[in-house]
Amino acid sequence: MSVRPVIVIAGIGNGTGTGAATARVFSKQGYRVALIARNADHLNKFTSELKETGGEAAAFPVKDYSYGAVTSVVEGIRKYQWQTPEKAEIRVALWNAAFGAWKPFLDVTEQEVHDSVEANFVAPFAFSRQIILAFQENELSELGKRGTLLFTGATASWRGNVSTSVFAAGKFAGRALSQSLSKEFGKQNIHVAHAIIDGGILTDRSLSRHSNPEDHKQFAENADIRLDAESIAKSYLYLANQDRSAWTWELDLRPAHEKW
Amino acid sequence: MSVRPVIVIAGIGNGTGTGAATARVFSKQGYRVALIARNADHLNKFTSELKETGGEAAAFPVKDYSYGAVTSVVEGIRKYQWQTPEKAEIRVALWNAAFGAWKPFLDVTEQEVHDSVEANFVAPFAFSRQIILAFQENELSELGKRGTLLFTGATASWRGNVSTSVFAAGKFAGRALSQSLSKEFGKQNIHVAHAIIDGGILTDRSLSRHSNPEDHKQFAENADIRLDAESIAKSYLYLANQDRSAWTWELDLRPAHEKW
Amino acid sequence: MSVRPVIVIAGIGNGTGTGAATARVFSKQGYRVALIARNADHLNKFTSELKETGGEAAAFPVKDYSYGAVTSVVEGIRKYQWQTPEKAEIRVALWNAAFGAWKPFLDVTEQEVHDSVEANFVAPFAFSRQIILAFQENELSELGKRGTLLFTGATASWRGNVSTSVFAAGKFAGRALSQSLSKEFGKQNIHVAHAIIDGGILTDRSLSRHSNPEDHKQFAENADIRLDAESIAKSYLYLANQDRSAWTWELDLRPAHEKW
Amino acid sequence: MSVRPVIVIAGIGNGTGTGAATARVFSKQGYRVALIARNADHLNKFTSELKETGGEAAAFPVKDYSYGAVTSVVEGIRKYQWQTPEKAEIRVALWNAAFGAWKPFLDVTEQEVHDSVEANFVAPFAFSRQIILAFQENELSELGKRGTLLFTGATASWRGNVSTSVFAAGKFAGRALSQSLSKEFGKQNIHVAHAIIDGGILTDRSLSRHSNPEDHKQFAENADIRLDAESIAKSYLYLANQDRSAWTWELDLRPAHEKW
Repeated sequence: MSVRPVIVIAGIGNGTGTGAATARVFSKQGYRVALIARNADHLNKFTSELKETGGEAAAFPVKDYSYGAVTSVVEGIRKYQWQTPEKAEIRVALWNAAFGAWKPFLDVTEQEVHDSVEANFVAPFAFSRQIILAFQENELSELGKRGTLLFTGATASWRGNVSTSVFAAGKFAGRALSQSLSKEFGKQNIHVAHAIIDGGILTDRSLSRHSNPEDHKQFAENADIRLDAESIAKSYLYLANQDRSAWTWELDLRPAHEKW
Repeated sequence: MSVRPVIVIAGIGNGTGTGAATARVFSKQGYRVALIARNADHLNKFTSELKETGGEAAAFPVKDYSYGAVTSVVEGIRKYQWQTPEKAEIRVALWNAAFGAWKPFLDVTEQEVHDSVEANFVAPFAFSRQIILAFQENELSELGKRGTLLFTGATASWRGNVSTSVFAAGKFAGRALSQSLSKEFGKQNIHVAHAIIDGGILTDRSLSRHSNPEDHKQFAENADIRLDAESIAKSYLYLANQDRSAWTWELDLRPAHEKW
Repeated sequence: MSVRPVIVIAGIGNGTGTGAATARVFSKQGYRVALIARNADHLNKFTSELKETGGEAAAFPVKDYSYGAVTSVVEGIRKYQWQTPEKAEIRVALWNAAFGAWKPFLDVTEQEVHDSVEANFVAPFAFSRQIILAFQENELSELGKRGTLLFTGATASWRGNVSTSVFAAGKFAGRALSQSLSKEFGKQNIHVAHAIIDGGILTDRSLSRHSNPEDHKQFAENADIRLDAESIAKSYLYLANQDRSAWTWELDLRPAHEKW
Repeated sequence: MSVRPVIVIAGIGNGTGTGAATARVFSKQGYRVALIARNADHLNKFTSELKETGGEAAAFPVKDYSYGAVTSVVEGIRKYQWQTPEKAEIRVALWNAAFGAWKPFLDVTEQEVHDSVEANFVAPFAFSRQIILAFQENELSELGKRGTLLFTGATASWRGNVSTSVFAAGKFAGRALSQSLSKEFGKQNIHVAHAIIDGGILTDRSLSRHSNPEDHKQFAENADIRLDAESIAKSYLYLANQDRSAWTWELDLRPAHEKW
């Protein structure tokens, strides 16, 4: 029986950002796609879209990013019966969910602290645990790996800044997790990587924030000043395809004209 | 009415480590000492010790490091009636509590994730909020500052490693918080600093882990191979005394012979 | 008249390492290859090898890595008349030359300091200047770039260590250069990237250092423990092909089982 | 015969900056001061000033920061006959000389590359070698150290930026050197430390650049927005006085209101 790889993606927003683009890129490469998100409507709509373009995709809604909910949902994916008869193996996973709040420190609420903790710290721990358990069951691929676990990072993964305290604390935590996992599981041929997205990504939501018509047009059309989600997704595909002799833990991605 | 400064210290263990040494050093410099800890027995014993040596100290036990408990306890310190008649101003605060678990990632429990989140992330947010609100009420000191907020970091604040995932995630989060606060509140003459303790500290507990008699003797007596808590405390005093023209956000501290 | 891209590679050793592998990978993608090295014999031999496999390649020996010599040689490449009629445009350049000496600091000689300065600092400045002047004459490619300037870094680009003082000082300098250039010339759609090679690369020379037969066999055959130069070269190809919306300045590369 | 410690300081500008302030602060603490600089007039004038305030100081002009010139001058200091009868021991040394040029990369001249190489890379290597040889002859002090070697770093030691390529390359190199030395010689109880000066320092020269009267007044009088050289010097004194159990390799220093 042949094997068809599965990519698990947590965090797809409204289907116009990094998670969704990653789903499309890997789907075209023959991966089955398991999608995790909190908004069931967006999730189902995007899953249908993927299927309509010939992909095999399944939606796994979660009510929140608590440890238990994330654990359960990945356990469900591991047992899922896909339509096609090939054996299913989770070969790639992406933690792309995040919680951010940009505001003066004294305006950060207790709830926002907890939301950052949950989406940026607790949930990635639960997710990583289940994904690594799944990877450990895999044979080595031709590239010498059992699986690739990817994390979407941000500028705030590297630097705390005025107005980013609660976001940066969460993103630093995720970066620490990914580095620890990279060091511990490399020896088991499990590849863990972390991408620093150091600029604005073109999504429905980010575009809507540019109310001035000229800004709106620039942000929509000028790829020098913001990231295409598809380009980020291609970097994830590149990482997943690195052979065992040369693995990247971390890379940064920013538009050509970004000031940094 | 004259003013006598208060230092608030959260995390004093059994009275032989960094928090306790900091209390002693600042007490000798004339600071009143407000001590926060979860173990009421250790806390009360150590507070008594400080008083016996002529210091003015008060114990503030907390049941846990939840957001609410930490907020309440610092609010209590802010309203506390000290024995001596001078006005009380919180001028220095140290977040020294931590939760660490050194173990393979797959052995990390959900509870340990939550403990790290609470002590290393949620509680420092709550603590910092109350401390900064207190500092904002202060006049500028002769050194040009309203207060100094210190964080005890660790090697794991810089690097995730095999077996440190849950500790590093927490310590990275605290480092991000301190950097964000440093950038946001420097303009209000509030000084935030972070010390990376990059080696073992001589405490009752760390000493007891050296069961081999020769190791035990070396660790106890050879200051080249482990940190004295008092030396760390002196670095905190140095940081608190930096004038407004030259503030340190971060420094590292390690024994002379440490391999790093 | 159609355009055929040129890659300029400085530093190809004896033809078994990163520079040579990069030449092969880009040659297969249709690039003309201009090779710079100090050892004319190795250079000519490797250039012939490339031509025999159907590539278009030219050798540019330099007597040393002085500012003047490096400037002259790149000027020569810019004016070189290639065999095929298409217009020549330098589109990618790689600084891969380095000087390292691993020894106790007090054993480092004045000559070794100067060798590190020349190969790791002065020469990359001269090289980068000529390459950027060349890139500025290019039109934007379909990917939205005028050219990609790559630097081969090392663990010592990130960390000074016992016995690496003179190598690390040089490699830190090259990293600073690449970061400055990335920030300054991104706005001109010139992409500058830096790869941290964090492990041993399988080359004739590194293999010869493994005298124990079992070690020798392991290093030669086990891709989990050392880098394949070709895999590094593929990362350079990936970087050169990133579109303008998502450029990487830095990535690290290490074998799956590397302790780091 | 009693011992009186010597501090060697390389780089004192016109006597209003970090090197000069360090000389004053250590002189007041009883150190003899050996001063190295290229401008003999400034050097002699400042040395006289130190003597007039009761210090013991000697001037050691160098014609340039070549390896040979720096080696010779420190050898001269090691053999110097001080006026007072106590034994002389070099106990602290500061590399404070630097060469910077802030300009677009393409305007950086070959000469400027060489000047940065000499002052920021070659000279610190020669200086460190002689200083460490001197320290190795010392007995352990009460603090458990044979000597403290300090480096003045800058924002550009951490980050390359637009217009700082040649300065950053040099300052990165010095940082790598200091880190390597710290790791290698800690075991010999030689303390090596590096200070990141992350802001403008109030000196004659920096003040003169503020031509607008209001800016001039602000920069001169407002310690929230620029560093006092004396405050930096006090941090060097603190570092020199750290005991063996808790040494800092690196700290940053910036004014309270600095944006970073």
